[in-house]
Amino acid sequence: MAKGLPKRSEDYSQWYNEIVKKADLAEHSAVRGCMVIKPYGYSIWEKMQAAIDKMFKDTGHTNAYFPLFVPKSYLSKEADHVEGFAKECAVVTHYRLKNAEDGSGVVVDPEARLEEELVVRPTSETVIWNTYKNWIQSYRDLPILVNQWANVVRWEMRTRLFLRTAEFLWQEGHTAHATEQEAIDETRQMLNVYADFAQNFMAVPVIKGVKTETERFPGAVDTYCIEALMQDGKALQAGTSHFLGQNFAKAFDVRFAGKDGKEEFVWGTSWGVSTRLMGALVMAHSDDDGLVLPPKLAPIHVVIVPIYKKEEQLNAIREVVADIKNQLDGKDVVVKFDDRDTNSPGWKFAEYELKGVPLRIAIGPRDLENRTVELARRDTKDKATYQLEGIGDKITVLLDEIQANIFNMAQERTKTYTTKVDSYDEFKRVLDEKGGFILAHWDGTAETEEKIKDETKATIRCIPEDAVEKEGSCIYSGAPSKRRVLFARAY
Amino acid sequence: MAKGLPKRSEDYSQWYNEIVKKADLAEHSAVRGCMVIKPYGYSIWEKMQAAIDKMFKDTGHTNAYFPLFVPKSYLSKEADHVEGFAKECAVVTHYRLKNAEDGSGVVVDPEARLEEELVVRPTSETVIWNTYKNWIQSYRDLPILVNQWANVVRWEMRTRLFLRTAEFLWQEGHTAHATEQEAIDETRQMLNVYADFAQNFMAVPVIKGVKTETERFPGAVDTYCIEALMQDGKALQAGTSHFLGQNFAKAFDVRFAGKDGKEEFVWGTSWGVSTRLMGALVMAHSDDDGLVLPPKLAPIHVVIVPIYKKEEQLNAIREVVADIKNQLDGKDVVVKFDDRDTNSPGWKFAEYELKGVPLRIAIGPRDLENRTVELARRDTKDKATYQLEGIGDKITVLLDEIQANIFNMAQERTKTYTTKVDSYDEFKRVLDEKGGFILAHWDGTAETEEKIKDETKATIRCIPEDAVEKEGSCIYSGAPSKRRVLFARAY
Repeated sequence: MAKGLPKRSEDYSQWYNEIVKKADLAEHSAVRGCMVIKPYGYSIWEKMQAAIDKMFKDTGHTNAYFPLFVPKSYLSKEADHVEGFAKECAVVTHYRLKNAEDGSGVVVDPEARLEEELVVRPTSETVIWNTYKNWIQSYRDLPILVNQWANVVRWEMRTRLFLRTAEFLWQEGHTAHATEQEAIDETRQMLNVYADFAQNFMAVPVIKGVKTETERFPGAVDTYCIEALMQDGKALQAGTSHFLGQNFAKAFDVRFAGKDGKEEFVWGTSWGVSTRLMGALVMAHSDDDGLVLPPKLAPIHVVIVPIYKKEEQLNAIREVVADIKNQLDGKDVVVKFDDRDTNSPGWKFAEYELKGVPLRIAIGPRDLENRTVELARRDTKDKATYQLEGIGDKITVLLDEIQANIFNMAQERTKTYTTKVDSYDEFKRVLDEKGGFILAHWDGTAETEEKIKDETKATIRCIPEDAVEKEGSCIYSGAPSKRRVLFARAY
Repeated sequence: MAKGLPKRSEDYSQWYNEIVKKADLAEHSAVRGCMVIKPYGYSIWEKMQAAIDKMFKDTGHTNAYFPLFVPKSYLSKEADHVEGFAKECAVVTHYRLKNAEDGSGVVVDPEARLEEELVVRPTSETVIWNTYKNWIQSYRDLPILVNQWANVVRWEMRTRLFLRTAEFLWQEGHTAHATEQEAIDETRQMLNVYADFAQNFMAVPVIKGVKTETERFPGAVDTYCIEALMQDGKALQAGTSHFLGQNFAKAFDVRFAGKDGKEEFVWGTSWGVSTRLMGALVMAHSDDDGLVLPPKLAPIHVVIVPIYKKEEQLNAIREVVADIKNQLDGKDVVVKFDDRDTNSPGWKFAEYELKGVPLRIAIGPRDLENRTVELARRDTKDKATYQLEGIGDKITVLLDEIQANIFNMAQERTKTYTTKVDSYDEFKRVLDEKGGFILAHWDGTAETEEKIKDETKATIRCIPEDAVEKEGSCIYSGAPSKRRVLFARAY
């Protein structure tokens, strides 16, 4: 019934690739590193967008749109920023094609060379701060709380659907503030918004924390992140929120006159989540039979499959379906009745399991007689027969239960696979034999961080927000440490 | 009070540019031809998107996402298509920058040259049909009814905010069908969706019709369009829907097996509207004091301006505002209470007129005494005092009235400025002295069409859908003509 998916236990990586393709989420395009997000995958992304966008608006943000192209010289204005992005930029050098003289097709017209090359935005801090310069004169113009939904391009050499693609879709918030504290508060507020979304919509538990200097966003003073644990014991960074200090304000000369008339540089933040969340969603919950979707992000909540031999039975089933839909009226539950006669019920069962539809109802001749339906949960695979009367309420209760259960399972797993270690040997052993998050003492130096990474491929995911101050010694150098940090191998 | 806008009668073009900037809709960016859509402008675009997207879904379409980049060779696969777009393409030739050896900044890394150049999509037929090739094998895979919301780039030399920009936002629908008739029906259905949106949301009356061969989309068999009349008597093409025949299916070898097992090429359509609609919205309704927005697309429906001297008056006004909001609860009316003490009531009146907020409520000390409010309509500038009791219902009635009135005014104008002419002299005179749409006989040749365009700058906007068959003779050549076509100077 698993439609040819590899088992997670045998080849997790291949299982992921196949589930993304077979569940119609996305596929590789003919353009290197760029993906096609297919209708079913995109409909999940739309649900994510709608929920996140509402959270942004509820916290006072508005959307806007800034240009796709960044002049090459802009990228250079912030030293760390250009260092971080220059090596993976798609560069536009010409603005016209022409017919080849030998009639072989079209070629780039050498006469249409741009005076200054344009980079396809890998992120928009530079273009946006260059714009904010004109929007900000006085404290009255602050804060600016703007977000944009956009595509960005980073020329990755090794790509994987959703997790790492040359082009991806994301939102990037860019805010400007009069004081350092306000900007820090904003950075943390948006981190909390992301954690809230991950946990309450995606049903993915996350660890909130701050990145080490090495892992910081190029141009940021501090990078906050949420980290989630996938079923194979690897971590995935699911969202970041950056406190930019005055770095971009200084690079683009963005100053404001305070109430006292004094000029000061503006304080900034930026924060983003991307279609990478789709990868996290798949890897956090799905099983060997396909996707498992949390009801809050499922495009279809209930699929109804008719089981019949005669046309009159199908007609009677249609009446039951109308009754069910009627019971769900106004309840925001999306029901699909799959009455196609081109596929068998068994094929349909497997198809909707693959697609992660939270509830499946089957209605057959005996159900018609008894005024019952058979209800199957995607998460637990439990099946039971219920009276048709009151099934609407039962469905809404079950959807809530599934949402909670998926989260609880992921949280249990995260707890089970979070290990405290006190020596480097233990660290390596846990990493290889168990995987997951490892809490260990670290001496705070980039040198140690790099050595551990080189030797084990584990990185410091973050210094957790709730890390308790407790003296210890670095598992690698033995030097004193004030708190444990979170290590893992990561996507 | 007009915040320094030029008058439409004096300089329509400058009036348009200024209103777009001063009402915070959009501005030019530092990147040639690319615009920044500012938060207020973007919030109108979001309302447009939401309404259009719902109409697409109600007609069975789903969204998806295809790559930003088109390999150069794809563009060449359909002969007319490459001819139409090659001259205005942004071309990506490299995928990396590096530090200049002389330390002067970053330069394009010559070693990171792409084997095949990538074009930033000017439209996505080629990439999408190349994808559909893998999605379609049999009649069971059809129809495909997909839309994408995306940015596209056409390297325009002369740009104007919203009307003609190098990068713009749009939606592009791309559908695939088993039969010619089904594809034609889809093309016309989407034209009707666009007309419905233009008239019932934007309050802009449109003429539906089909383009002449000269004005057809490159690669289409037929291009249908909606044309709207702006206040300066020029036409604006507000949306197009293309019947592609089997052109792209042939170019990308997309075939399907029918029920009878026979292979046939797939039939296609594509259709789009863009941020150009924002320009149409501004130019169709606005006046010398600023924007006039139809309530269905207004981000704010009612602004409340308090007029007070003492803090206790402001507190009393706050209670009235709470009462008004209470009366509007659940009615989908967005109310903004502007209690900033940094600007005078007069400044606020002018500001919200500029921004086109449909209704303004002023509450002063006398209103507090009498339990009244002063209500002003943006469209007619009428002001009247109403009892606070029942004001919620009054507001919803007025918003409907404003939506209808704006449409009616635009429709009256379109009627008044649509002229039937029977000679070329009359044609030129009407064009210069009155402007607007001109219905005239045309001999059906591209030659005549081009001569009229060269001599008068008027183009055939479309052959109207409701054109009556009636013999006549071409105003230019005198040759026989079967029906009148619609001419105008156009944006």
